[in-house]
Amino acid sequence: MYVPGFGEASPEKKAAKNLHDFFTYIAVRIVAAQLQSYNPEAYQELMEFLDRHSLNDGDKFCSELMRESSRHKGLALRIIEVRSAYCKDDFEWDNLKRLAVKMVDESNTRLMRDYVVETSHNVESEK
Amino acid sequence: MYVPGFGEASPEKKAAKNLHDFFTYIAVRIVAAQLQSYNPEAYQELMEFLDRHSLNDGDKFCSELMRESSRHKGLALRIIEVRSAYCKDDFEWDNLKRLAVKMVDESNTRLMRDYVVETSHNVESEK
Repeated sequence: MYVPGFGEASPEKKAAKNLHDFFTYIAVRIVAAQLQSYNPEAYQELMEFLDRHSLNDGDKFCSELMRESSRHKGLALRIIEVRSAYCKDDFEWDNLKRLAVKMVDESNTRLMRDYVVETSHNVESEK
Repeated sequence: MYVPGFGEASPEKKAAKNLHDFFTYIAVRIVAAQLQSYNPEAYQELMEFLDRHSLNDGDKFCSELMRESSRHKGLALRIIEVRSAYCKDDFEWDNLKRLAVKMVDESNTRLMRDYVVETSHNVESEK
C-alpha cells in the first residue's frame, strides 16, 4: 500500500530496520546475562564498552565492538550469532501481530471512552 | 523465550508498542495526504497541530487532538480509524518478517566481510 512520505523505503522496511536494532539490543542483553554467571571478566568488559557506545544503531555498535580488541571481537561474533538465532527462532512473530492488533483496538476504545466520560462530566457540571 | 531485563513486558509487547506508535504516524501521513487534495483548510489545521505536538506517543497525540476543537476531533477519529485499518489490512506482516530475517543475514555477513577486508589490508601493509 502506498504511504505518502516514505520515498524508496516501505513502512515494512522501516519497521524491519527498527526491529533489527531491537534484536541487537536483545542479543546484547542475552549475551551479557550469560557472561555474568560464568565469565565475570568478559561481562565487565562488555558493560564498560556499553557505557561508552550507543546501542541505537546495532550494526555500528557491533562493528565498533569487533575492532576494540580480540576479546571484544569474540563478544561481537557471539552477539551477531545470537541476534540471528533470536530473529529466526525465538521472536514470536505471530504474537507480535496479535498484540499490535489488540493494542490498536484497546487504545481506540480507550481514547473514545475517555473522551465521552470527560465530556459527560462537563455536561453534568454545567447543569 | 526469556530475555533478561524486560520485567513484566515481553520483547514482543515492547515491539508491538513501537509498531503501534509507528502506525499512528503512518495514519497521520495518510490522512494528511488525503486532506491536502480536497480539504486544504483541514490539512493546514492538522499541520499546525503537528508543529506543536509530538507524534512519539501516538495515543497521547490522538488524545490531545480530540480535545483541541470539534474539527480536530473529527480528524482524530479519522486517524484512529485509519491506523486500525492499516494495522489489520494493509501492513504486510509476512513481509516484515522476511525483511528482518534478510536484514540480519546481510548485516552479519557485511560486518564480518568488512572486518576481514580491513584486517587483510593491515596485514598487507605490514609486510
